[in-house]
Amino acid sequence: MSERVLDFWLEFGSTYSYPAAMRVAPLADAAGVRVQWRPFALGAIFKAQGWPADSPFNWQAAKGKHMWRDLERICAELDLPFRRPDPFPQPSLLAARVALVGLGEGWGEDFARAVYRAEFGEGRQIGEPAVIADLIANLGVDPQPVLASARGEEIKSRLRTETEHAQKLGIFGAPNFVAPDGELFWGNDRLEAALAWAKRGSVI
Amino acid sequence: MSERVLDFWLEFGSTYSYPAAMRVAPLADAAGVRVQWRPFALGAIFKAQGWPADSPFNWQAAKGKHMWRDLERICAELDLPFRRPDPFPQPSLLAARVALVGLGEGWGEDFARAVYRAEFGEGRQIGEPAVIADLIANLGVDPQPVLASARGEEIKSRLRTETEHAQKLGIFGAPNFVAPDGELFWGNDRLEAALAWAKRGSVI
Repeated sequence: MSERVLDFWLEFGSTYSYPAAMRVAPLADAAGVRVQWRPFALGAIFKAQGWPADSPFNWQAAKGKHMWRDLERICAELDLPFRRPDPFPQPSLLAARVALVGLGEGWGEDFARAVYRAEFGEGRQIGEPAVIADLIANLGVDPQPVLASARGEEIKSRLRTETEHAQKLGIFGAPNFVAPDGELFWGNDRLEAALAWAKRGSVI
Repeated sequence: MSERVLDFWLEFGSTYSYPAAMRVAPLADAAGVRVQWRPFALGAIFKAQGWPADSPFNWQAAKGKHMWRDLERICAELDLPFRRPDPFPQPSLLAARVALVGLGEGWGEDFARAVYRAEFGEGRQIGEPAVIADLIANLGVDPQPVLASARGEEIKSRLRTETEHAQKLGIFGAPNFVAPDGELFWGNDRLEAALAWAKRGSVI
């Protein structure tokens, strides 16, 4: 039996990861590609590369201005709600750790989409444990044991390992799509190309 | 009489301006949009913003590595020849000044496409006056008076003014598409959205 797969590397503070997270599942289904969601911590990669841990969209003003307008246009086109988070970027480590827990329990993708919608569609504070607990509960999952796991050393260590792996793959931003052969596609606007690549070549 | 227009701001050292320059004319024709080609000097904007004048793809290594592979994939998809320029970026001021001369004489767009093809398709040195002269001659134009004009104060000043105008529009990279209402679209991958915008809204 052969299967076509693609890794979706996501960072919860990342603006363009929002439309990517909302688009990926139906497009992957249509292409017959199984997508593995892999949260990582982009700030740690920025730091390791000697950049500010802050978003480049904050320290590159003209680029940031275009990005917000561009994201607004993309969301309008996709009929996705859009609200600029304040502050930006939102602290994203707790969401990433909870997503790792959820991906092991079958509700991680729904949780990830709920985080992006809360953050970029509703302007909610995704760094707040109460907000994250609410999003978990909305999925019919008891938040307290999940938050306890997310704060435990095992999950923290997993996120660090995943982030180191992302950096080794050449990841420098988000979102990313990586095929089993290592082919890297960066950006929401490369999702279709990545799926086409995975569909064509990556039979395991 | 109404006309739909879009400004195409291009930098001859810019990698993604190559596929954009090759794609824009037929797509604009199909959309019924008139495109005005506007060369500018991106290095001057980088300097004015306090960044290195060098390409970010050189001083951001992981991003640069992805860009070259991404550009190679895009060119393969479009059936465009691709050869990585060495050195990169190529000195682009002479090409920009000659393009300004040519745009006033009706051969500027053909010249611009010829420069991009020479630079990114054939690995030629577009900073060399002999190469530029050859590209001009291939268009059936006498190169010497063109090169003299391109080196004159009037054209140099025009390029500076255009670059200042680009910066005021919020331009921070290349290529860009700007509608008459100021709407800015950055990147080869935003060409279709820019044409749709121009087609929808910008009746002058």
